[in-house]
Amino acid sequence: MNLILLFEDDYFKPDMVCLTGRRRCHVDQVHRASVGDRLRVGQLNGQLGTGTITELTDQKLVMKVCCDQPAPSPSCVELVLALPRPKVLKRTLITATTLGIKRITLINSWRVEKSFWQTPLLVSERIREFLVEGLEQCCDTVLPQVDCYPLFKPYAEDVLPGQLVGKQGVVAHPHVEAPHTAPVSDRYVLAIGPEGGFIPYEVNLLLDQGMVPLVLGSRILKVEAAMTSAVARLSPF
Amino acid sequence: MNLILLFEDDYFKPDMVCLTGRRRCHVDQVHRASVGDRLRVGQLNGQLGTGTITELTDQKLVMKVCCDQPAPSPSCVELVLALPRPKVLKRTLITATTLGIKRITLINSWRVEKSFWQTPLLVSERIREFLVEGLEQCCDTVLPQVDCYPLFKPYAEDVLPGQLVGKQGVVAHPHVEAPHTAPVSDRYVLAIGPEGGFIPYEVNLLLDQGMVPLVLGSRILKVEAAMTSAVARLSPF
Repeated sequence: MNLILLFEDDYFKPDMVCLTGRRRCHVDQVHRASVGDRLRVGQLNGQLGTGTITELTDQKLVMKVCCDQPAPSPSCVELVLALPRPKVLKRTLITATTLGIKRITLINSWRVEKSFWQTPLLVSERIREFLVEGLEQCCDTVLPQVDCYPLFKPYAEDVLPGQLVGKQGVVAHPHVEAPHTAPVSDRYVLAIGPEGGFIPYEVNLLLDQGMVPLVLGSRILKVEAAMTSAVARLSPF
Repeated sequence: MNLILLFEDDYFKPDMVCLTGRRRCHVDQVHRASVGDRLRVGQLNGQLGTGTITELTDQKLVMKVCCDQPAPSPSCVELVLALPRPKVLKRTLITATTLGIKRITLINSWRVEKSFWQTPLLVSERIREFLVEGLEQCCDTVLPQVDCYPLFKPYAEDVLPGQLVGKQGVVAHPHVEAPHTAPVSDRYVLAIGPEGGFIPYEVNLLLDQGMVPLVLGSRILKVEAAMTSAVARLSPF
């Protein structure tokens, strides 16, 4: 937790917050902070700044906060991800958030096990927890938008074209014969397949919508590493 | 397991192997393979090829193998990693291996908790398990070399200079004012700090040896994402 993220409910005055639970514990036990210490804070979907501790007890943490710095710029990459297994989903959502990705679309694919769509992690409260954890790690405040499309074809044919307007679509796919660089663009939609990859029918449908393949090297990477590698290669920094 | 990695002990004839345990189970239950099926195999530290199943029982898997294709080229990046917490260490070693990194040096740093050096994961048998898992994921055969240096200063002053000969050293460090691209080189040594980063004394000692800082963006990434991002940016592909 490199940033204490503040929510509307935390404020009891325009510049005063009271935190309990997980964040109070973290400040107490990990930061080992005390009254007068200044912590990095950020308002959810708002600005970054500093919180000065005015009270810290076993029950609560009270801070006077001043948030006047902009959140970091979003990544130029939006993510389209074949739903991974639950454990990987959690880590991938956190990591995608730390990379500054602001739109994440979870889609089906032939190699996505049907049971993955039943995971309790897919409810919006749990997803939001992972996104918040990512924001706290990377010191950002802007929650990514996460959408789910449990049918591949309707997604690829009816939704993806709208997402691609003004952006270059890229499919990271280990088995495709393709160039190692994507066409230069200032905004990308990056599709990452499931373990085992998209099937040829799916790759072709994505390419039909104007996406281009991107090869990440000759090794088969796990979902999280493939995403991080591709984002790094597409980002100007 | 995208590759069945073969060890010397598996061979009972020059071109025949007998596997039991984990690999037999995987082929049986995940690949759902049967006699006559062909699987991707590789000889540890040797070549890649194909195994044709000649016998598959509850106890053993017998294959006739032919390995005549070269393993993929190694990454141009060697890794120097401040020892992460055990759970992260395991994942980071696996991911580093999938990225094709062939030399991994685990070092101490002021922000590495002393207890991390006591983890049972650091024994060579466990480390080897993680490296093998990485090779099986990415379809490579060449085991990375892993060394440990539990004292920072002697490592940085006495060992690092030798490692840097003919290579460009790069420190991925979120708090350093630095360019976003590293000097072009065909071989790199990449240093990744602990959670919270190297302390200034340590960064300076690394820079004194000729390493240069590399900024990966304005967000603070976790160790694994920082490594993957940096490797992607340094690799020509």
